[in-house]
This record gives sequence, structure tokens and C-alpha cells, in this order.
Amino acid sequence: MYEPKPEHKFTFGLWTVGNRGADPFGGPVRAGLSPVELLHLLAEVGAYGVNYHDNDLIPIDATPSERAQIIKEFKQVLADSGLKVPMATTNLFSDPIFKDGAFTSSDARVRNYALQKTMINMDLGAELGAEVYVFWGGREGTESDATKSALESLKHFRESINFLCEYSLAQGYDYKFALEAKPNEPRGDIYLPTSGAMLGFIATLDHPQMVGVNPEMAHEHMAGLNFMHAVAQAWDAGKLFHIDLNDQNYVRFDQDWRFGMQSLKQSFFLVKLLEDVGYQGSRHFDAHAMRTEDYEGVKDFARGCMRSYLIFKEKAAQFNADSSIQSLLAEIHSENNSLQPFAGAFSLEKANKIKTFAFDRQKIAARGLRYEKLDQLTNELLMGVRS
Amino acid sequence: MYEPKPEHKFTFGLWTVGNRGADPFGGPVRAGLSPVELLHLLAEVGAYGVNYHDNDLIPIDATPSERAQIIKEFKQVLADSGLKVPMATTNLFSDPIFKDGAFTSSDARVRNYALQKTMINMDLGAELGAEVYVFWGGREGTESDATKSALESLKHFRESINFLCEYSLAQGYDYKFALEAKPNEPRGDIYLPTSGAMLGFIATLDHPQMVGVNPEMAHEHMAGLNFMHAVAQAWDAGKLFHIDLNDQNYVRFDQDWRFGMQSLKQSFFLVKLLEDVGYQGSRHFDAHAMRTEDYEGVKDFARGCMRSYLIFKEKAAQFNADSSIQSLLAEIHSENNSLQPFAGAFSLEKANKIKTFAFDRQKIAARGLRYEKLDQLTNELLMGVRS
Amino acid sequence: MYEPKPEHKFTFGLWTVGNRGADPFGGPVRAGLSPVELLHLLAEVGAYGVNYHDNDLIPIDATPSERAQIIKEFKQVLADSGLKVPMATTNLFSDPIFKDGAFTSSDARVRNYALQKTMINMDLGAELGAEVYVFWGGREGTESDATKSALESLKHFRESINFLCEYSLAQGYDYKFALEAKPNEPRGDIYLPTSGAMLGFIATLDHPQMVGVNPEMAHEHMAGLNFMHAVAQAWDAGKLFHIDLNDQNYVRFDQDWRFGMQSLKQSFFLVKLLEDVGYQGSRHFDAHAMRTEDYEGVKDFARGCMRSYLIFKEKAAQFNADSSIQSLLAEIHSENNSLQPFAGAFSLEKANKIKTFAFDRQKIAARGLRYEKLDQLTNELLMGVRS
Amino acid sequence: MYEPKPEHKFTFGLWTVGNRGADPFGGPVRAGLSPVELLHLLAEVGAYGVNYHDNDLIPIDATPSERAQIIKEFKQVLADSGLKVPMATTNLFSDPIFKDGAFTSSDARVRNYALQKTMINMDLGAELGAEVYVFWGGREGTESDATKSALESLKHFRESINFLCEYSLAQGYDYKFALEAKPNEPRGDIYLPTSGAMLGFIATLDHPQMVGVNPEMAHEHMAGLNFMHAVAQAWDAGKLFHIDLNDQNYVRFDQDWRFGMQSLKQSFFLVKLLEDVGYQGSRHFDAHAMRTEDYEGVKDFARGCMRSYLIFKEKAAQFNADSSIQSLLAEIHSENNSLQPFAGAFSLEKANKIKTFAFDRQKIAARGLRYEKLDQLTNELLMGVRS
Repeated sequence: MYEPKPEHKFTFGLWTVGNRGADPFGGPVRAGLSPVELLHLLAEVGAYGVNYHDNDLIPIDATPSERAQIIKEFKQVLADSGLKVPMATTNLFSDPIFKDGAFTSSDARVRNYALQKTMINMDLGAELGAEVYVFWGGREGTESDATKSALESLKHFRESINFLCEYSLAQGYDYKFALEAKPNEPRGDIYLPTSGAMLGFIATLDHPQMVGVNPEMAHEHMAGLNFMHAVAQAWDAGKLFHIDLNDQNYVRFDQDWRFGMQSLKQSFFLVKLLEDVGYQGSRHFDAHAMRTEDYEGVKDFARGCMRSYLIFKEKAAQFNADSSIQSLLAEIHSENNSLQPFAGAFSLEKANKIKTFAFDRQKIAARGLRYEKLDQLTNELLMGVRS
Repeated sequence: MYEPKPEHKFTFGLWTVGNRGADPFGGPVRAGLSPVELLHLLAEVGAYGVNYHDNDLIPIDATPSERAQIIKEFKQVLADSGLKVPMATTNLFSDPIFKDGAFTSSDARVRNYALQKTMINMDLGAELGAEVYVFWGGREGTESDATKSALESLKHFRESINFLCEYSLAQGYDYKFALEAKPNEPRGDIYLPTSGAMLGFIATLDHPQMVGVNPEMAHEHMAGLNFMHAVAQAWDAGKLFHIDLNDQNYVRFDQDWRFGMQSLKQSFFLVKLLEDVGYQGSRHFDAHAMRTEDYEGVKDFARGCMRSYLIFKEKAAQFNADSSIQSLLAEIHSENNSLQPFAGAFSLEKANKIKTFAFDRQKIAARGLRYEKLDQLTNELLMGVRS
Repeated sequence: MYEPKPEHKFTFGLWTVGNRGADPFGGPVRAGLSPVELLHLLAEVGAYGVNYHDNDLIPIDATPSERAQIIKEFKQVLADSGLKVPMATTNLFSDPIFKDGAFTSSDARVRNYALQKTMINMDLGAELGAEVYVFWGGREGTESDATKSALESLKHFRESINFLCEYSLAQGYDYKFALEAKPNEPRGDIYLPTSGAMLGFIATLDHPQMVGVNPEMAHEHMAGLNFMHAVAQAWDAGKLFHIDLNDQNYVRFDQDWRFGMQSLKQSFFLVKLLEDVGYQGSRHFDAHAMRTEDYEGVKDFARGCMRSYLIFKEKAAQFNADSSIQSLLAEIHSENNSLQPFAGAFSLEKANKIKTFAFDRQKIAARGLRYEKLDQLTNELLMGVRS
Repeated sequence: MYEPKPEHKFTFGLWTVGNRGADPFGGPVRAGLSPVELLHLLAEVGAYGVNYHDNDLIPIDATPSERAQIIKEFKQVLADSGLKVPMATTNLFSDPIFKDGAFTSSDARVRNYALQKTMINMDLGAELGAEVYVFWGGREGTESDATKSALESLKHFRESINFLCEYSLAQGYDYKFALEAKPNEPRGDIYLPTSGAMLGFIATLDHPQMVGVNPEMAHEHMAGLNFMHAVAQAWDAGKLFHIDLNDQNYVRFDQDWRFGMQSLKQSFFLVKLLEDVGYQGSRHFDAHAMRTEDYEGVKDFARGCMRSYLIFKEKAAQFNADSSIQSLLAEIHSENNSLQPFAGAFSLEKANKIKTFAFDRQKIAARGLRYEKLDQLTNELLMGVRS
């Protein structure tokens, strides 16, 4: 009943099922799997596609022939398994050269190396069929604002994105760029820390139509923000080019838990939004198994992400069909189309009518909205105790 | 030495020095002062101007003649004291009619009443000389996403701002609108929760050039974000139309403390940014005295806000003149203009040269950046122990 | 099926259903109800009991005869309705006299007034049958540590609690004292900010056996802490004398939402703990209806708290009976009793055996724990999709 | 002027200056130094002592002869340099065997291995002269409360600490145990998450007098708590056995910044407390250099920690000597000894006098406390602009 199918567009990064369980206080607990082994694992659990950072696939110091061999094998297994590669991205954060940022480094050599690394992987991504290219600027920030100018950094970041837009156009790649925000970690503060900030930044680019966002649930939760609201804003702006699904508690270190693990209600409303609006992109799980797990546990993790999505999807449909809930909503919205003469385009005449209209403030205010009841019904539906 | 002067453009809201010290767990501790008395207080402490919500000045149920009398007296005291009114704003959050939002209410009557209330006060603000009109949508949000659609709410909010832009243009008011974000409180989650989100939203408006942001330090800190970074983004986008200065710890309830009270380093970098870029707008203190204070304490509070700003401003100049600090910065930026042939506008030829350039990754990465030293020097300057 | 019964010991404070919906940004939205009307409301929704602050019942400036009349009426309605008063507490935070604390004020007059107010209400609480007396020191803290000594404050707080323990003993009241922690709001930082800190403090009292804690879910969540863990520590220490159930997101202002509204998983594990250990005390809901509600909504709110508790209780029983879950747990604990010779009391001989035992570290570490699977099963049970 | 001297008791963990700059998103940026090289570095910068985890010094798989050789060399350099080893601790978190905890693992083999590892290192610590033994249970927690019982975990943790107290006594080591709390990271939630919780736990031990706390600034800040208040509680309880100084913003991932880097005001009040009460223990810096640094930067980091402490110490003395500040404090405390007849031990007669005393509530409440002024003076002193 909750089995993944290709049309669900469930994808995982190589780095997610390939995560070995290391963290700042301990080394790996799982043996490393090769990219090919990871494809087999993803095929086994029923994923639709796989996303990758350049160095998930090709070691940073690989020779050209090693590189060619890796790509050849990877493409073969993709073909055999039917797995797609909807998204590609660059690792611009792990190598020590990026210790003070990539595109926002104060060293032009680093910024240019970051461009190089990205262009090379854009070429590969296009070859693998990726249509979305994600930018997560994990090191683009500061610990002390004495060290780097926020204004210079924004300028550098914009120049880089503009340059790469031009590159994509010049190469005829037809990529959509998706910018991914995160408030902090590994940097003290990361620039453009929320999906909203990214939307604001996009408006300052040379090719804003090519660039959207890749909101990540855990990243917005790290700032204590309502993730569904952020996704709705991106959707409203026509900028929801990709999405990273996972979980964690609010205002914590980056936990990257299984989707649906903790924030049941928030996840439900998120899935409801995606399904209600007809979002057609990947449902990408940017998460990893807990450190307690072996590879059986990694499969449990991956299956759990997809099952939970499908459970929430089913419940979203139930919400839309529940007559008690819908009748409360109808009652709540009963005045949503009042005062029709005031609706629509501005005119000074209309403005003056509104200015002089006699509103019965006390009466309007007195109406109880029954949100406690509506919310309780929603929770009971979510817990499966609505008959 | 740290005395406020008109050119510093220090302003306070009527609601700031007029705050009576009530909070969710206790009633007022200070007697209420009239708007006229508050003007006298502000003049006494040396403020440049005063900002107001409509209902700070005119009770929501005032008769036309009461209203006229209040305005007449207020204008007289403004004229006598020389205080300016650079900014006006509407209270769209206190009255019970706004209990589920103003522009995002699901009741068209509430939305139209909010338009009415705003237009009436825009008229008054223009009459008082205000050039900036601030929108803080304190109730535009939800506790449960079962109750209101985030997409509908964005649509309603946009329609309202578009309508009011048209109204301003039609009336020839020449207002700049400044949108003020807050992540939560009093609502569980407020829509468009950060200044970045507001910048993203502005790009979807009919008259984006008229609309900018009013970032508030405490509000960004409530989401654990770096306020100076948010202000820099607004400045970079040409959207820093106003600013609310105050203080509080990260990720807490809204504390609205005296500017400079707690976040010494963050406040220093903020003032440094504003002064370095030559920001010409108001320095508005959106804060209030602690509940322990009587009106002598309220004056201490107001004077402290301004003194702290001027102390940070002096220290910013010292930072810019400190030869040890500046020589470390020069060293840090020594490679900022490397690889000049790669700079400037995109060309495919240039892109290909960057793609094939041989970067010495290990060597570039090996450079120690001396940020610990630079930051320590900065802190010692801030603490006044640099000789 | 989820109907409240007296044996569930569901209680509400007068201030919860009596909350009028005011907050820092808006006044009341609901008319005030008298204590007697609130008792009727609580009886109607099926509560077991009612708790009160002295000034919920008796205005701070009531005359002796007003006071006598109020108490008489209140006792009559208690008798008629069968409602119990299991807990009493003192309002030591609303009146301006407490603006810098009650027991930790630097003014001895305030401290003694707080003692007076508490003793008088302890007398009344005993008369009404209360067995638990709660202390929430909402103003016992600081905004600036320049103003008050943390060490002096702890000393003053201890002296007050010691004094009141003696008073209770001298009067033969047999009260259990329950200390309630909160990290901040209304103060910048409140002393003894977590239930854990309160447990530490209790160990320094003259009569530690009389004093326990009253953990509140929202208060621990304000510090981003796991509430169930805090309750477990209190239970483990024999100090769970009372509990305040409600809800809110982590690390936010104090939201006091309906129990079970948001943190479904956390609430489930909390109820499971209370039921598994056989906690016999009140299930007190320290929350209030959203500002959107009228009194029908207040009843929805109160019913929702109780229904959610009973739903979680049912699911806890299901968890304990679910064979897939229990067999995973059995597997996880299969080595919990290994090495029996090393268990039990210390001896140097045993210590030396442990020191020299050859553990197969790699083998022990290699075991996958299947926590992803177990957690997913738990969530599916919680969402009602386990067959 | 701010030069470290032995009497300042400045210590660093081997893991602090030995930190290689790796984090969850990138590998090491600095070459590893041997323990002996680290001692030389610490001696060069002027530290008093060095603390260590067992595996900082001796690799987990060292042979007995390797171990003996390492210890011999280490002791030689200690002797040559004059560096002390005031504290020792066990790494019970890095190895995969501890992936679900050490003392709270559900596997008795893990718990006994943790005892073994600790006893062996207690032997070594005693040999090196350590008087304090720190326990940081980094893995003692959960991501999902389905997986482990909080009550069982507390029981296991207590049994282990009790056992090790007995071991210390049996061996005649005279150790003081210092428990270190952290709210989360690397676990979702760590048990006993605050120093306050640890104080509560200590009261349940068999040998509470042997056990105190090791509060860490960054750890309390991760929960948004006032660190100085936590340290004051520990001091008040006679339990401040050690302290970890560092810095970070509130409610973030564990940043372990240079002491004094960010939280200037909080650090000032902390140092003031330690100096005012005459704390005699180590000032241990549990922090590390930023990832941007090479080993010159590591020395900058270490020197900065110590300089900042000494700057705060100097400013604390200035605060105590500042006549404007002290006279405001005297005024604030002018009623601290009012009502002397009510002070001191309880008697029912005294209680009755307090109960019937006529307090002039309005008059007492009306006094303005001048906290805004006092706090502003404090900040100006901290910024070095008090003449």
C-alpha cells in the first residue's frame, strides 16, 4: 500500500545512503560502499533516482582515466537499474581549500577553482541527464565578521552564479539552478541563511528566471522556521525547483534524520502542500541513517522515508475528503468573499469607498473561529483515530 | 562626547518610550503618558524624531473631533520641539478583529478594514511629513496550518500591498514602504518570517521599486540569524529603507531590549556596516525600558540606546584606522585580485581557460588565515584595551 | 472511547480555561468568566479537578468580607460539581511589587510580602483540600547580571522555601511542594531554569523530602530539551509531585498550546512513561485556547487536551502489545544481562576482573541495532497505520 | 599586562590545541601533532596545565609496550616543562562500540567495557597527578525514545558512577568526579542535559560528596541558558569541581570557540563570579582554533583565551571599584535588610507577624530601580569608555 513507484519521484543523494555514520565525536561505523553498490542498494529499496556531488562519484584527485572508468561503470548501472539522475551538485565545502568559502573566499584563486570544479561537474551532470543543478554554499559564511565583508561576499557570490548561468546557457545545458540555504553549521553564520533570503538574492541576478531554490526541511528548522511556509513562498514565486526532505528538531545541530521521523504534523502539512499544488519535481531525501545502523538499517531508513511520504500523502487526501473538517473550513471561509465590490484592481473610487465603509468591528471580532476543534480533528486524522 | 545630534537621525516610536512595562505575566508598572508628554520626553533626551502607529496617537474609537484635536496638539508640539516624524505605521494586530490576521485574514471584511485603517493613517502620516511607511504584520500567521492556506495568505498579502502602493501613487504621497519581518510571536509562525523572505516577496509585487524592508535586530535574532548579514543583503539589494535597532538574546521571546545591551559584538559590526556604507535613513530604536524602571529609567534607556550607537560608531572608526588590524586584513586579501584575466564578464573562452587552469590546491589550502588573531584584536579594540 | 473520567485525574488551572486571549500585542478577546462560571465550564467538559493561583480566585485588593464570600461560593460549587482542588499556588509575578522578583528581590519588604501572600494562600489551599503546593518563580531572574547577585538570589530563594516548609509543618498541612522551572520569559533569564536545576536545588534544602518538582512540557521545550527525559529524571528521584501538560514548538516564546497539539511523538512518549510507571498524580493541563476562540472554542480546547491524552494512552498500550515492536526490543536488549558475574555491588576483585576482561570491541560494535525500523514502526503505530 | 602565569591555573585539553579542524562537512586542515609536540606548544604559550582523554594520549589499540613508551615520554616532557595534569577523562564516545552510549548502552558488554576503559585511565590519571576526573557522556542519549528507556538509562548511569566512586576509594585515589552535561549533539537528546540536571542526579548517588560538576559554557548556551547562573548554582551547592570555558552563540551546534570570542558580557559576568568567590580550580579552555588556522593560528587561539580571561578579570575589579556603579548598587540594595525582625530562623510567631504585617504594596512597587543606567554603565566599563 505504501510501496514506492517511479511516479512518486523519490530520489536519494549518493551521500545519504552512503553516509558512514561519522560525526564530530566519532569516526565511521559502516564500511564504505562504492557508487555502484549504492545504486544497487537504491534500486533494491525502490528509489526512482539518485543525485550526487562530484566527489561522491569521483575522488577529488582521480586521474582522467580513473574518472572515465568510474563514469562508464556508473552509467552502465544506471542503465541497467533504470535509476535516473535528476540533480547534480558540487562539493565546495569538504576540501581544505574551501575552509573560508568557495565563491565568497577572499582569495580569487579559490573562487576560480570553485568555478572550475562546478563547470566540470555541470558537464558531467548534463551527460548523466540532470536537469537541476543545486548550489549549497556550506562554507560561504563567517565565524567573525571582522574577517570578511558581507557585502563583498554577496558580490562575489552573485558574480559566480551569474557566470555559471552564462556557462549553462553557452553550453546549451538547460539547467535550472536551485540555491539551498542553511543558517549555520559548519560556519558560525552562513550567508543567505534561509530559502527566503535566497529568493531575495535571486531577484538581484542577471538571469533570475533560471534560478530557484532547493529548500531543506532540516535547514529551515535549524532557524526555528515553518518549513511548509518557506516552500509555499517558493512555490508562489514559481521558484520551487527542487526540495530536500528530512527531519530534525527545531534549532539544533544539523541532524538529517529520516523524513517523517520526528515532525509528524509539519511533515504532513508539507506533503499536503506538495500534493495539493501538483508539484512535479523530485522528492529528494537528504538524510541518513542513524549511527546505530548497519546496512540493513540503511535500507530501513530509506524505505521509511518513502513510506512516511506515502502515508502523509494518503492522509492529505483524507483531510480533503473529511466532511467534518471540510465543513469547519467552509464555515471559517464563509466571509472570504464578502464585500465583492471592493475586490479586484485598484481604483481611487474603490479606495474611497473602502475608506468610508462602516465596519462593525466588535461584531466581526466576536466570531469564534473553532480552530481548536479543526486542529484537534486534524490531529486525530493524523493519528488514525477518525472513524 | 557621545551626545546625540540631529544629524545622527536617532528616532523612537511613541510605543517605545511610552511602553508601560506590561507583559504576559503582569500588568503595567508605569503610568501612561500622553503623546504630547512623550514628545517632551524625547526632546529632553535629544532624539531627532518620533515614529508612531495610528493608535499610539489616536484611540481606535476616537470621534472625528477628538481626532482633530489630538492631531492639532501633536503637530504643535512637533513644531515647537523640532522633532520630525520620519516614519508612520498601522496597528493591525492589537484589536480583536485582527485575531487571525489583517491582510491575510480569511474574512474579506477584516482585510478591507485593514486597508481602510492603513489608508486613513497613510493620509495622516503624509500630513505629518513621514516618508517611510512600515508594515509589520504581527498577526499574519498561524498556530495550526490546518486553519489557513499559506498560499492564499501570500496572495492576500500581495494584493493588499499592491493596492496600497497604488493608493500611495494615486495620492501622490511618494512613500517608501518598508516591510518588517518577524518569525513568530504573537503567532505560532508568522508568514515571511525573515528580512530575506520579505526581499523575496517584494520581487513578486507590482511596484517592487517602492517597497523595501525594515529589518529589526531582535526579530532576526529570534531566528538565531546574523542581523548584520540580513542588513547587508538589504543594502546590497537597494532595499534598506528603514531599520529597527534593539537587542535580545538569540532564539528567545521578543525582548526588545535597549540597543547595545547584550549583543555587543553584533551591534558593533552592524553600526560599522551602516556607517561604512553611508546609510542615510533613521536609526530607529524599537525597544523599551525594562519593567523595573520608572520614567527616569525610561530616559536612561533612551539615552543608553543613543550613547551605545555612538560608542560603536567611534569604535568602527578606530577599527578602520588600526594599523595592526588593517595590515592583517591586507594580508588576508592579498590574493583577492589574483588571476585578473579571469575576472569580469563571462566568455566561453574565459570559462574554458578557468576549467583547464592548474590550481595548486594543497598550497592554496595551506595558508593560515590568522582569523583568531584578527578577531582577538577586534575584541580588544571593542573592550577598549588596545593602546 | 476517549471520554474523561475522574480516575484519569485531569485537572485545569482556573487561569487556563479562564484565559482571555490577551498577549503582548493585543488585549483580551473573550469576556472574563467568574471562578464559579469556570467551575461550571470545567464540570461540563468532564474535568476531575481545578487548580488555582490565589488571585485567580480572590482579587489582590479584596476586602475580608469579599474574600469570605468568594470562598463560600467557590466551595459550594465545588461540592455541587464534585470537582477537586488537588493543587494550589501563589501569584508572585503579576503585581508590580514583584517586578524584580519575589523571593529573590533585593528588597526585604518584597520577600516578606511574598512569604505573607504564600502563607495566606497555603491556609486557603489546605482548606480547599489541596495536597500539592506549586511554586513558579516567574520573576525570579534578571535581564542584566549587573543588577542582582545570582548567589544572593539562590540564598534568598532557599531561605524562603525553607521557611515555608517549616510553616507547612508547623500548621500540620502535609503539603508536598512542587517547584516549577522555566528558562526565561518574562525575565531575560530565570534562575534554576530547568526541572533538573530544581532537583539540584532541592538537595540543598532543609527538608528535601517535602519538596519535588512540577515539570512543564512547554518550559522544557523552550530550552530545547527532551521533556520526557526530564520527567523520567524526576520520577527516578522520587520527585514527580505534579506535572504541567501543554505544548509548543522548541525554543520559542511561551505558547501554552493545547496538550498534544504539535509535538505528537514527544507527547506520546511522555504519556507512555506516566502510564508505564503508574504515576498517580494529577494530569494538569497548563495551557489555554488560541486567541481565535470564543468559549465554545475554549471547551474544544479543554476537551482536546483530555482526548489527546487518552489517545496517547491507548497507543502506549498498543506499543506494549505490538509483537513486531516488542520482538525488536527484545533483540536490542538481548545482551542487556550479559556478563552477569560483573553485575551488582562493587568489589575490588570484580573491578580487576572487568579491567582485564578481553572485550571483542569490533564484534560488539558491528551489531546493527535496527533503530530505524523500530522507530518507523512506532511512528506508523502513532499514525494508526499498523494493522 | 595580560600575560598568563601559573597562578591563573589556565589549562587546555590535548584535544583542544590538537584539534585538526575537521567537522561534519570537511576533513582535517592541520597536520596532527603528537602529545609531546602539543605539550611544547602549550608550554610556549604559557599554559599552566594540560588535560587529556585516554585516547588523546594512547591510541585505543596501542600495545602495552607502546603505551608504556608514550607514558614515559609524556611524563618526561611534563617534568621538563613544568606543566601539570590537573584533570583526566575517558573517551567514551568516539569508538563505534559506543554508538548507542557507554554507561547507558542496552548491551552489558558495552557498559562493562566502558568501566574497564575508565578504570584503566583513572589509574593513569592518578599516576600523572590528576585530582579531578571528568565524565562527559557524549553518547548517553537517544534519537528516538522508542529505542531505549530513560529510566533504565538513569539506573545504568548511576550504577556506573557508583561503581567508579567505589573504585576510586578502593584504590585510594582521592579523585573528585566532575560530571559534564550537554543537551544534544552528537545524540538527538543527551540524558541529564544541563549542569542543573547533573546536580539533581548527584543527589541520588551513593557517594554524593565525591561528585560535582564540570559546567561548560558552550553546552549551557546550546540550551539557551545563562551559564553564569548555572555556575553560581554549582558553586552554591559546593559542587564546582572544574569548569570548561569556551564560547558560542545560543542554541546552535557545538562551536567550541575561543573563550571570549562572542559572548563578551556573559563571559565578563562569569569571570567576575569566579574571581569574586575565589574559585581555586583550573580555568580549562575546552575550545579549538577555527578551521581557517594553521598552528600559528592555534597559538593565537590559545593566547586569546587566556588574554580574554585576564581582561575580564581586570574589568571585574574595575566594576567592584567603580564608585558610580557601586553607589547605584548600594541604592538598589538599600532595603535588603529591612524588616530585620522577620529575618533568620522560622518560628510560628514570626510567621504570624509576617502574615499580618501591613505592606504598602503600591509604594514599594513604585520605586524605579535604575537597572537601565546600571547596565549601561557596566557595558561602558566593559567597552573601556568609562573614564
